[in-house]
Amino acid sequence: MFGDRLSAAVSACGAPVCVGLDPVLERLPDASGEPLAAVERFCTGVLDAVAGVAPVVKIQSACFERYGWAGVRLLESLIVGGRERGLLVINDAKRGDIAISATHYAKALLSGDAAADALTVNGYLGVDAVEPFVAVAEREGAGLFVLVRTSNPGAETFQGVGIEGGGDVSSAMARMVRGVGAGLVGASGLSSVGAVVGATKPEVAERLRGEMPEQVFLLPGYGAQGGDASGLRRFATERGDGVLVTASRSVIYAGEGAGWREAVRGAAERMRDEVGAALG
Amino acid sequence: MFGDRLSAAVSACGAPVCVGLDPVLERLPDASGEPLAAVERFCTGVLDAVAGVAPVVKIQSACFERYGWAGVRLLESLIVGGRERGLLVINDAKRGDIAISATHYAKALLSGDAAADALTVNGYLGVDAVEPFVAVAEREGAGLFVLVRTSNPGAETFQGVGIEGGGDVSSAMARMVRGVGAGLVGASGLSSVGAVVGATKPEVAERLRGEMPEQVFLLPGYGAQGGDASGLRRFATERGDGVLVTASRSVIYAGEGAGWREAVRGAAERMRDEVGAALG
Repeated sequence: MFGDRLSAAVSACGAPVCVGLDPVLERLPDASGEPLAAVERFCTGVLDAVAGVAPVVKIQSACFERYGWAGVRLLESLIVGGRERGLLVINDAKRGDIAISATHYAKALLSGDAAADALTVNGYLGVDAVEPFVAVAEREGAGLFVLVRTSNPGAETFQGVGIEGGGDVSSAMARMVRGVGAGLVGASGLSSVGAVVGATKPEVAERLRGEMPEQVFLLPGYGAQGGDASGLRRFATERGDGVLVTASRSVIYAGEGAGWREAVRGAAERMRDEVGAALG
Repeated sequence: MFGDRLSAAVSACGAPVCVGLDPVLERLPDASGEPLAAVERFCTGVLDAVAGVAPVVKIQSACFERYGWAGVRLLESLIVGGRERGLLVINDAKRGDIAISATHYAKALLSGDAAADALTVNGYLGVDAVEPFVAVAEREGAGLFVLVRTSNPGAETFQGVGIEGGGDVSSAMARMVRGVGAGLVGASGLSSVGAVVGATKPEVAERLRGEMPEQVFLLPGYGAQGGDASGLRRFATERGDGVLVTASRSVIYAGEGAGWREAVRGAAERMRDEVGAALG
């Protein structure tokens, strides 16, 4: 089960950190040559640099889909490359659809030759739209992270709308996520169905943890997006686990020039140490 | 502007109908040979059959993504092929992300060589996640259909949750859609930012029309999914426009054997006539 695999990988590395790979050409230390070749060179370098330091990488599908089918081909090869290096790979594709279309997405992205270990999912379409992803994840030993509360400023305009009976729209999503993940709680106590929970107010973080006691929270917003390690405890379970802290720009663009890979590795190590210390 | 382009195309064909292209190998009239070649042959045949009958086709991205990058390449070629035949093409990819990632998706799918005329979008992430799509759509003269109320049985579990102040989660989404689409209302009175609204209870349909007076409602669920033409009026504007009725299986699988293309064309013509008659 993914929850247990993640738990073991985090223990082996020492902290629940995830490096977000969302390359944009303008930021690469070496953008020479064909765009996709430059992106590939950069991403391969980041995978080499963070393997053994971070247990998990999260690849942003949009950064590859922007190049059409050739970008998707590169994304597939990087998923394979990440797993070959012993990393757990999350495909951050935020897919969501109903019935057979949901099954298509789940199978395409979580099974077969270019399968990722986990996928981000958008549950707006309702419980029967998430269940096909859960079914494939269960069969493949894969994981899901369903969008519950995101870190963008405008998240409040929709996710923060109050609902009847208390809580807000993200609470309704949280309850659905807990429900569909209940059958996939492993020996670690963590479900293979996790949640994306962005940096948010302390009281919202605590409420969401109460609503999703078995979920791993994929937490973007560390480093460049403004989050820091000090508030991490409130997202964690009482055991101190159940979080996966993601940083992208602050790690992958840590260096320039010939030594950029070493700078990336150094930044990943610092993040691992900070997050490990904050969680105790 | 897309709203006006759509309005003109509907007038030229006589009814606001859309043929949904979501091929699954098991249902094809001729599935011989390589899977992707069979899918390509089928889809090209459907595009030939419905051109001049239906103003719009909607291609389900999941049916192509299931084949990885090679499927995406085929999807791109079919988008081009549909537009070459004079059809407006909606890419039903249900994308949603924030900031630069949203822009990546919007540019990849609405601009460039394989751009569609319109894209389906998931707005769960909030208003600032939809705005980058709107910006690209405005620049390209393209359209969006944001998921508001879907036709799957489980939609109610999330979209139907009551919110403070009246209405439900889909009302909160509807208000956001109207807001972001307000600047893109053309001479037709229709915004280039539309909404996906599935077959639903009469009172919900009327409420959503009140909440989104300028939106084109992309209505799945006609034909095989159980909808019929009799209830269409309640989704329309007072002018009798503002809907785009989609059928997939009942049209694309209308025939078998050598004459399947003629059967598809006949089914599209019948749908056009029924929908035209129902809307008056």
